Amino acid sequence: MAPTYVIAQGGGPTAVINQTLAGIVAEAKRRDPKARVLGALHGVRGVRDGHLVDLGALPEAELMRIAATPSAALGSTRDKPDAAYCEEILKGLRKVGATAFVYIGGNDTAGTQAILNEAAAGSIACVHAPKTIDNDLVENDHTPGFISAGEFVASAFLSVDLDFRALPGIYVGIVMGRHAGFLTAASTAWRMDDESGPHLVYVPERPFERERFVEDVRLVMARHRRCIVAMSEGVTGPTGRSLVEELVPPELQERDAHGNVRLSGTDLGQAIERILAEDLKGKRARVDTFGYLPRGAISMVSEADAREAHACGVFAVEAAARGGGSVALQFDGRETRPVLVALDKVAGKTRHMPADFLMPHENRVSAAGTAYLERLLPRRFAPAKPFV
Amino acid sequence: MAPTYVIAQGGGPTAVINQTLAGIVAEAKRRDPKARVLGALHGVRGVRDGHLVDLGALPEAELMRIAATPSAALGSTRDKPDAAYCEEILKGLRKVGATAFVYIGGNDTAGTQAILNEAAAGSIACVHAPKTIDNDLVENDHTPGFISAGEFVASAFLSVDLDFRALPGIYVGIVMGRHAGFLTAASTAWRMDDESGPHLVYVPERPFERERFVEDVRLVMARHRRCIVAMSEGVTGPTGRSLVEELVPPELQERDAHGNVRLSGTDLGQAIERILAEDLKGKRARVDTFGYLPRGAISMVSEADAREAHACGVFAVEAAARGGGSVALQFDGRETRPVLVALDKVAGKTRHMPADFLMPHENRVSAAGTAYLERLLPRRFAPAKPFV
Repeated sequence: MAPTYVIAQGGGPTAVINQTLAGIVAEAKRRDPKARVLGALHGVRGVRDGHLVDLGALPEAELMRIAATPSAALGSTRDKPDAAYCEEILKGLRKVGATAFVYIGGNDTAGTQAILNEAAAGSIACVHAPKTIDNDLVENDHTPGFISAGEFVASAFLSVDLDFRALPGIYVGIVMGRHAGFLTAASTAWRMDDESGPHLVYVPERPFERERFVEDVRLVMARHRRCIVAMSEGVTGPTGRSLVEELVPPELQERDAHGNVRLSGTDLGQAIERILAEDLKGKRARVDTFGYLPRGAISMVSEADAREAHACGVFAVEAAARGGGSVALQFDGRETRPVLVALDKVAGKTRHMPADFLMPHENRVSAAGTAYLERLLPRRFAPAKPFV
Repeated sequence: MAPTYVIAQGGGPTAVINQTLAGIVAEAKRRDPKARVLGALHGVRGVRDGHLVDLGALPEAELMRIAATPSAALGSTRDKPDAAYCEEILKGLRKVGATAFVYIGGNDTAGTQAILNEAAAGSIACVHAPKTIDNDLVENDHTPGFISAGEFVASAFLSVDLDFRALPGIYVGIVMGRHAGFLTAASTAWRMDDESGPHLVYVPERPFERERFVEDVRLVMARHRRCIVAMSEGVTGPTGRSLVEELVPPELQERDAHGNVRLSGTDLGQAIERILAEDLKGKRARVDTFGYLPRGAISMVSEADAREAHACGVFAVEAAARGGGSVALQFDGRETRPVLVALDKVAGKTRHMPADFLMPHENRVSAAGTAYLERLLPRRFAPAKPFV
């Protein structure tokens, strides 16, 4: 009997998550032209509810066009299924005769697959294919989606630095990232030289201290007449709570169903604006919140990212043939390629930015961090040095 | 005697303001290889203080590289000189034997040139070359800098709309623009179809009403499960004051030296977030402030914009030969080209978005607005329609 694949997409969309989808479909059909390939709408919710589309029937040109389009073509979900929900998903998979279920997403998605894999007991190959702009999956050198988002952030900060050479002042750009600072650190990848911004980088892994921040901004302003700051939405205060929790009055904080404080860029932005207005009075300052702009920017789809995301999809079919697991993008010192690792190695775990990616006592990216970012994000622009 | 040109750049930088600079230098040297071309650092401040660089000495390759780099290579200024300041500028111009002064900028810049032109009484040709992402110069069909910034905004909203098809909810993107809504309206230029966001557009020209806003968001959510909103920083309330003034508690408002409330995207963003939390409880919502990202994005420099900005620079030299004035980019129904208009026709005036660019009773761009935007911002991407 020909195999039946079910594919779903979970969590926040990226610029290249549809490349992974297309890679799965193309490889499944290449291995067996009779293979059925179904797509579930809005993640596991679509599997449970029987909302499925026939991806195998798509003309190749249409599949390629979908692959080149950012965001999750099948729709996504933030559902984190428990055991009972997983039983319903399994029922849905069995109903369509699924032999393999490939779920493209981050560590929550891997967690769902780990539960399903247990429950399916070998009857359905459960595969997790990696995706996240946060770059926070363990076992991966980097994750599909990160490079495109990183290039957006690097490009934006290069542009803003040029802007602030013309009209000096303080700029704070707030970048997504609850637990991992990789995307915020990517802001430094395309700096023109050692004078260039971002001059200061604040990530969730290193506590933010207000006095130190103000003092550092003051020093950078004295030296460069401008100070460009990259800050993660999830940056934490000295007590380990998020800065939003520390700085925003409790009555203005919003919490989600899990009790997590909603990390709104504008909440953090307001708090930072207030610090600047109070402690650096009279200095021109601007805070922008990048929010969703980097994660699926149609203008910044990286070719390397697209290629790797597609390769992860192709490899996910091989992973299904081997009985399931998590596809991880690894780097062997020469090339990057997908390998198979156990689901429980990835499920629910968060990879943080290594401590040595920042300088020990400064909020700047270190040589180690720079080397990593330069390998992943080769420069795409060669601007001229302004006269000022 | 060979002519001496002094060039300066004023106001907010754009992606192509250096194209205009390069156009002036190239044309000045083409007309007279012995011409001196000096650049003033940080606008009229550099003229006054004698901070000048020799642009005529630059190798052509370097000039082209500067032209292709966003932001103002000479630096800029927010100074609005009065008569006394203008006397000092004139002194600075005479000191270097200037025969022409070309100031690239918006309507404030044209205003400075109008004063200088009076004071110089024909001894120095005063030329204003247009530049602004706000697209708010009268006498111009559109302004250099607008197309690149508009494409950034159009691309961002196309991407965000795809994102919210995958994970439904409310999105508000706040776009620069104190008095004119063109840049915010550009958010609609690359909508895929009538279902696509942005579904609602709020500009300074049309008063914002809270109840109507909430009701409209609710209706769009009911129809599309997502509601994408584009909003200008300078959007005004029913009394004509900016929404920031109406919604932000007075003790949190900041004012500049002229008494204008500082239009911070995060202030407005917070106010809008609060409205959504109060009146549309439980709906997933996200507010991002684009801020400076569109105005000099190195990744989104439009070729058409670059070409037109360069042509304005070339024509500014002709304008100097004719005794000065304001260069305006006009459209004759077939092609766009720079023409010469009197300085006082442009100085200090603001071009608003025509009332008929919005539908009469809806916060949506009309057919007339769409026709204008589609002429200026031809589509650059052809994404696939998602399954959801």
